[in-house]
Parts: sequence; structure tokens; C-alpha cells
Amino acid sequence: MEVHVLRLGHRPSRDKRLTTHLILAARAFGASGATYTGRRDPTLEETISDVVSDWGGSFRLGYSEGWRRLISGWEGKVVHLTMYGLPMGEAISSIRDDPSDKLVVVGGAKVPGEIYGLVDWNVSVTSQPHSEVSALAVFLHELFEGQELDRVFEGARMRIKPQEGGKRVDGKPGGSKI
Amino acid sequence: MEVHVLRLGHRPSRDKRLTTHLILAARAFGASGATYTGRRDPTLEETISDVVSDWGGSFRLGYSEGWRRLISGWEGKVVHLTMYGLPMGEAISSIRDDPSDKLVVVGGAKVPGEIYGLVDWNVSVTSQPHSEVSALAVFLHELFEGQELDRVFEGARMRIKPQEGGKRVDGKPGGSKI
Repeated sequence: MEVHVLRLGHRPSRDKRLTTHLILAARAFGASGATYTGRRDPTLEETISDVVSDWGGSFRLGYSEGWRRLISGWEGKVVHLTMYGLPMGEAISSIRDDPSDKLVVVGGAKVPGEIYGLVDWNVSVTSQPHSEVSALAVFLHELFEGQELDRVFEGARMRIKPQEGGKRVDGKPGGSKI
Repeated sequence: MEVHVLRLGHRPSRDKRLTTHLILAARAFGASGATYTGRRDPTLEETISDVVSDWGGSFRLGYSEGWRRLISGWEGKVVHLTMYGLPMGEAISSIRDDPSDKLVVVGGAKVPGEIYGLVDWNVSVTSQPHSEVSALAVFLHELFEGQELDRVFEGARMRIKPQEGGKRVDGKPGGSKI
């Protein structure tokens, strides 16, 4: 099952670092790619592309002016993460057992009400206010049952050698500042 | 086991929404409170306090000028989340099995090298770049084995009634804008 993330309504001035963190979390927790709507942001695209080039894998970030075509044209099922949805614990097995590719929609500012009716599942990761970054990460972690943590990112220029204390990185960065 | 989060080096201009999301994730995923260092930020403190007052529970956010006294004076064990640390999968059982209260240290910009040597565990939630928000949420979710999702926040003015589609909230907000 492939997972693609759709981030709605990016505002470069306000959401710059949040969207970067969200897209990086999508990549780190096993999504194959992401698309964002809202205002186009070349800096965001460059940051993600630099991370992929340094840290490996084939994750791609794309931009789309609107979300309608992406949702209606998606060949698979669509999950919308929202604090108002069904608890993740109730929904996750049926999402996991469905073999089709998943589009995971993550709101920004004001999510259009229409979206709730267009998707296959509205899922809440706690019914408490927190963050689309934490919601997406915990959702993907549950969806992949933790196996995403063992994923190897092919073609990485840099690799961390886990340490009890201190830092060790093999390789050198190209463009990424992480 | 109680968990308290220590957020290092907050910069109001740059980190405003990220630190808000981080602290809200700490609360939603079961931490009892948090402390931040860096520049004091009354707006951040008010946002968190408004959320607690509307959504319940007894989570508290405090400010400290430095991190040294909090770490050295902590009566329990200290975990530092860092992409350079030991994989969460290797460390989590011993952290979970240790009954003492945990201080979970989460970096901002440049974490002082000294911290790696002062803590009991340096833990990585993937060795890939993503976000302190996703790292903290997934770590707490693993630490509490998902039981934090069933937590009830006492004294809430507002409660979401989970829905398959649409939104339903019982109660009315006081000050929070979430």
C-alpha cells in the first residue's frame, strides 16, 4: 500500500516551518510523496528536495492549485485526519486491511466542509487540539504498525549511526540544512 | 509514571506556532506539563492556558531561563529526543519499565552538546530529519502504549463527539481559538 499526503491551504508566511515539518514527517514515517495546495512556495519545495537528495529515498513533493481533482481522481481510498472524526483506534484496522493506495488529507487553516463528505474515512488522532504534524506521524506509525521505522532510504549521501551519547553522521550534506 | 516535557531554546519570532503545536502535542499525548527555555513568550503561555481551560485536564506550561537546574534537579530519569540517539525500538522497553517520572527533553535550534552526556537516554524516533512535534508524539504514544488516546480530560468546557462525517462539539469555548 502506497500512501500519499495532501496538505491543504499552505500559507508561506504563516505556515512555512510547520508545512516543512509536516512534509518531512510524511517522508520519515513512510509516505511515498505529498502534494500541497494553497500558495506556491519554492523555498519549501527546495528544502524538501535537498533533504531527499541528502537523506535518500524517492519521496516527491508536488504542488496543486486545488484539491478537488486530486481527491476525485485518486485511485484508492481517501482518509481525512480531523479532530472531529472517528477515533483512530476504531478506524485503523479497516484502513489497514484495505489494500488500495491511500491519500491522507491533512488540513491547514479552515478545511472546506465539503471534504468531510468526499472522503472514505474521517479519522481523529485524539479528539484534542494538537498539531497536524503529530496527527499525521502517529497515524502513519499506526497504519504501518511501526515497520516504517526500519525503512532504509536508498541512495542517501548521509546516514546517522545511532549513538548512546553524542552525534555520528557518515557522509556529507549537499544542500540540506537539517 | 508522570511525564514532563522540556522544550529548549524557544524563539518567539521563528518558533511561535511550532512550539505551540509541540506543547499541545505533549498535552494531547499524555504529558502532565511542560517547561520551555529560550525567550519568554506570553502569547504562547496564554494560548496553552486557554486550551487547557476549554479542553480540560491539569496540564501546565512553565518557563525557565535555563535548562541546567531542571535537568540536574529532576527526581527521576531524563530522556533526550534526538535523531542521533539510539532507535526508539531499542530503548523504549527500558524507559517504560523504569517506574520513575520522566523528563523528556526536546531540542529547538542548536542543542548544547553537554546535554547528550547529562541524560539517561538519547533516543531517536527514526534517524531521519522530521520534526520535534512528530518525534515527541510518536515517542509518547509508544511510551504509553496507546493508552493516552483513551484519556479523559476532566473539567472540559468543550468535548468533541466523534463523527463519521462532519463536526460535532458539545460546549462552548472560553478563550481558545482552536
